[in-house]
Amino acid sequence: MKDKATIKQMIEELKTLKTDNMYLNDFFHTWKESDDEIAAVFQVAEVLRALRENNISTKVFDSGLGISVFRDNSTRTRFSFASACNLLGLEVQDLDEKTSQIAHGETVRETANMISFMADVIGIRDDMYIGKGHTYMKTVAEAVQDGYDDGVLEQRPTLVNLQCDIDHPTQSMADMLHVINHFGGVENLKGKKVAMTWAYSPSYGKPLSVPQGIIGLFTRFGMDVVLAHPEGYNVMADVEEVAAENAKKSGGSYKRVDSMAEAFKDADIVYPKSWAPFAVMEERTKIVEQGDQEALKALEKRCLANNAKFKDWTCTEDLMKTTKDGKALYMHCLPADITGLSCKEGEVEASVFDRYLVPLYKEASYKPYIIAAMIFLAKFQNPSAKLEELLEAAVKRIK
Amino acid sequence: MKDKATIKQMIEELKTLKTDNMYLNDFFHTWKESDDEIAAVFQVAEVLRALRENNISTKVFDSGLGISVFRDNSTRTRFSFASACNLLGLEVQDLDEKTSQIAHGETVRETANMISFMADVIGIRDDMYIGKGHTYMKTVAEAVQDGYDDGVLEQRPTLVNLQCDIDHPTQSMADMLHVINHFGGVENLKGKKVAMTWAYSPSYGKPLSVPQGIIGLFTRFGMDVVLAHPEGYNVMADVEEVAAENAKKSGGSYKRVDSMAEAFKDADIVYPKSWAPFAVMEERTKIVEQGDQEALKALEKRCLANNAKFKDWTCTEDLMKTTKDGKALYMHCLPADITGLSCKEGEVEASVFDRYLVPLYKEASYKPYIIAAMIFLAKFQNPSAKLEELLEAAVKRIK
Amino acid sequence: MKDKATIKQMIEELKTLKTDNMYLNDFFHTWKESDDEIAAVFQVAEVLRALRENNISTKVFDSGLGISVFRDNSTRTRFSFASACNLLGLEVQDLDEKTSQIAHGETVRETANMISFMADVIGIRDDMYIGKGHTYMKTVAEAVQDGYDDGVLEQRPTLVNLQCDIDHPTQSMADMLHVINHFGGVENLKGKKVAMTWAYSPSYGKPLSVPQGIIGLFTRFGMDVVLAHPEGYNVMADVEEVAAENAKKSGGSYKRVDSMAEAFKDADIVYPKSWAPFAVMEERTKIVEQGDQEALKALEKRCLANNAKFKDWTCTEDLMKTTKDGKALYMHCLPADITGLSCKEGEVEASVFDRYLVPLYKEASYKPYIIAAMIFLAKFQNPSAKLEELLEAAVKRIK
Repeated sequence: MKDKATIKQMIEELKTLKTDNMYLNDFFHTWKESDDEIAAVFQVAEVLRALRENNISTKVFDSGLGISVFRDNSTRTRFSFASACNLLGLEVQDLDEKTSQIAHGETVRETANMISFMADVIGIRDDMYIGKGHTYMKTVAEAVQDGYDDGVLEQRPTLVNLQCDIDHPTQSMADMLHVINHFGGVENLKGKKVAMTWAYSPSYGKPLSVPQGIIGLFTRFGMDVVLAHPEGYNVMADVEEVAAENAKKSGGSYKRVDSMAEAFKDADIVYPKSWAPFAVMEERTKIVEQGDQEALKALEKRCLANNAKFKDWTCTEDLMKTTKDGKALYMHCLPADITGLSCKEGEVEASVFDRYLVPLYKEASYKPYIIAAMIFLAKFQNPSAKLEELLEAAVKRIK
Repeated sequence: MKDKATIKQMIEELKTLKTDNMYLNDFFHTWKESDDEIAAVFQVAEVLRALRENNISTKVFDSGLGISVFRDNSTRTRFSFASACNLLGLEVQDLDEKTSQIAHGETVRETANMISFMADVIGIRDDMYIGKGHTYMKTVAEAVQDGYDDGVLEQRPTLVNLQCDIDHPTQSMADMLHVINHFGGVENLKGKKVAMTWAYSPSYGKPLSVPQGIIGLFTRFGMDVVLAHPEGYNVMADVEEVAAENAKKSGGSYKRVDSMAEAFKDADIVYPKSWAPFAVMEERTKIVEQGDQEALKALEKRCLANNAKFKDWTCTEDLMKTTKDGKALYMHCLPADITGLSCKEGEVEASVFDRYLVPLYKEASYKPYIIAAMIFLAKFQNPSAKLEELLEAAVKRIK
Repeated sequence: MKDKATIKQMIEELKTLKTDNMYLNDFFHTWKESDDEIAAVFQVAEVLRALRENNISTKVFDSGLGISVFRDNSTRTRFSFASACNLLGLEVQDLDEKTSQIAHGETVRETANMISFMADVIGIRDDMYIGKGHTYMKTVAEAVQDGYDDGVLEQRPTLVNLQCDIDHPTQSMADMLHVINHFGGVENLKGKKVAMTWAYSPSYGKPLSVPQGIIGLFTRFGMDVVLAHPEGYNVMADVEEVAAENAKKSGGSYKRVDSMAEAFKDADIVYPKSWAPFAVMEERTKIVEQGDQEALKALEKRCLANNAKFKDWTCTEDLMKTTKDGKALYMHCLPADITGLSCKEGEVEASVFDRYLVPLYKEASYKPYIIAAMIFLAKFQNPSAKLEELLEAAVKRIK
């Protein structure tokens, strides 16, 4: 547990980061944020965590709502968002909109305003349809901006992307903070090899936003990021471009290979995880729009058959032995498809998964703080001053 | 944004209103409340809003539950209720009672007590069955009164009608507060013409409580209220009587016509909205009680066919031109059936709706404050003193 | 209403009780708790209630989550848990896990950690499957203990059993606190006769945890506890052993009879309530595991037919007359199957039930406070000091 002097020091470090542009703004994709802004999210997350560990309240809202919109099932992200809101003093209200997956723009605008009269933050997960999730979030963000400008809303709720079709920033940043802590600081990451690789799963249609989020963020830290997948399982070209550019700037590298073995070789970090090819997700989105159930079934059948060709893309003990000292950090966003446990053949061998249980849970434990930090930075123009206030006041969380 | 001196002045005005009878009481129908009580709800709503705009906390409950019971789908009212509770410091717990639509009296009494051990307010929406909604609310109110008298409940939760078969007071009062602000004060309403008119919609069975709520409340302000609908689409006779009486007292007028054009002519305010005839709603209630699915379908078919005869009852640009200076305030409780947008033919032309988007959203924005004001007046015997305390303490909502 | 001097006296009495072992611990079965611990739960519950009645805030958490997991429908317990959490300052988040009733151990461990990053308490109801509910709760408790030990969780949430296959401690303790208050103190219970008897109901498969909870707890107070049921409707043998041992220690008695009349004769307390035989519940669990719908239907049919042989096991006015002075305290966990009201033939005659309505509601009213007391004792090493603080601070609940 960090003591108060350490926390004070962390807040001092935060002061050196420029975060003005985050104030009253939204969080969509990590690559839209500057290095300072990314660093600030990590720093605020760590300070909030340290305060809580010291039983110091971080309730900066006396009242106010955090609205969650989950257009896909979710337990982990739902609880992370609820935890983040509660940590800051916001009460969660869930908008349950089973209907109108692809709703008309005007309707989205109306709904966005109707739920926002007392909302300080809106968290949205909409990851299943290519070209839809991010667009929806932008529409909501614009609607509440208009609502605020027009005097309909007293405050403009901040939008936090809890996973869209393009990026999953709360996941990739929780993952990265785990990596930073695991390797003892951001300064130790240069030259580390990261293998973000596709893995076999008996389901299809898993979103692309996790691998995209990882290559879009991890390339910013001077690491050698390798994306591996079978032929045809491409991610969005735009995001690969972001990754390549990041790598160039940060002094790392980014490359794509078609072999899991090659990716794992000497890797410091491995992230084996299934996803659906971008082209398939595009096709799927069109079919869903047309409401063609037959075509959807046919697509699923075809994809599963194709997946089955790559059952050897699985994280085995043997593969793990080929990583750096045989001890690469195994990562996953959870839940994983574990061979012989949650499915017959899956992404990872049970013994590998088991050995990494505690690090995996720690990885997940950062998410609530990452979300809280994103909200915090959007709501306080001078975040370090506010954190200092909290530290000084030292109101007990449990009295 | 109102400054503190203005808020102080508003609180002074509140002191002149007699609200003793609201203390520890319920809110069922606007016409059960005195003029002072209605004015007090508006005044408290405005003060709460002004305090929040000044980032001043209005959290008067340290803990306590607000129970919501929605016997019909709802997004807007659900979020308004949640917002109101949160604004005052109550946590919302939703009673999800899909079953027992028309439950036995004793069971209602039991449930009402079981959910109320720590409830300060119960908000109920039950609007679909004639003769049921209000009756249900009265049963709940009596049950918790008995529970309190018998020493079962430590406090007696206040009941707020979030829409029943007869009235929709949180809607009509939000609408009215919008009108007051639009016309620059209640003193400017005398002689204004209001057209509450039926409009075509491709759905049937929309509740009567909105038009009834409007004619039951708007007639109290010296306005000329016209209710227009095709033959057979009558509202409850009792409520028309209330409207007529109100009009007489307030120096306004109330009349019913069978032409949308006549209603719109020179109107200052138009409220075109679909509803089902009272007689149909009565028939429907009986059929639902008997659980006769065939009869229900037949009724729906018959009603839709009848509705279709009146597709010309729609709010067009041409009709809008006939209103006062062609600029009547267009109102709707939302969501509206918009021609060419949310349906092929509906209540209003898209261009009309679009032009009034911002006023429509503002209209809706009053509802959380109206609900909060109703709760506030039921919980504090001296509401102005309590509001003064909040203003003086000036605890920040966002710290 | 108790005055502050009385509350102070109650807190003094609490100081004499040894509760160290409850601190940071879970609450599974009443018979795992010492007499001091049971007494402390009652005492803290009464103090919390008295504080609330005096409008004194008992909010000891500034933020934090209370997670509820209901693997069976629930209104009463759900609202009791929500009320208890709110009373102490925790926000409820419900884990809705319709799937995986009998989940794999590793998955339970993962979920338990994922929902607990900011959880101070987890309340679980899992009562339908013999050998499953308690096991599940133990797995969750161990998972969060491991999570805490491994540094995944900053705090270790306390687990509260909201009903398992073996015990229903929040129910039996609410019932007992009602009995204590009804008879004017725990010192008046010695020698009182309690009839916990099976009663006919037109449904089958009601959980055993209520009768088991009652005989497992009520035998600790020197009372003569009689369990009555038709042949074959046995409860778990282990729990009967607990009851027998308790009775021996407390100077009371425990016996089983096969006649409702014998149990009711001269009883001071009667608790007629339906349940399914232990053997049937075991069979049912196996069938559900196998997913054999046909077998499940056959079992239901057989059980209902068997139940129907014992329709005379119902709490009538005639039976009530045979109790002590014809005035035994009638108890039920609610909802009851009331003859002629909620069913054709059920557990109790309508006139009996009606006469005891107020005591029944009061019985239920203790549950939120019992749950809050369990949480309180798990979170504060020195509960009396904390309660004294609350009394002295006297922060108003309603300001």
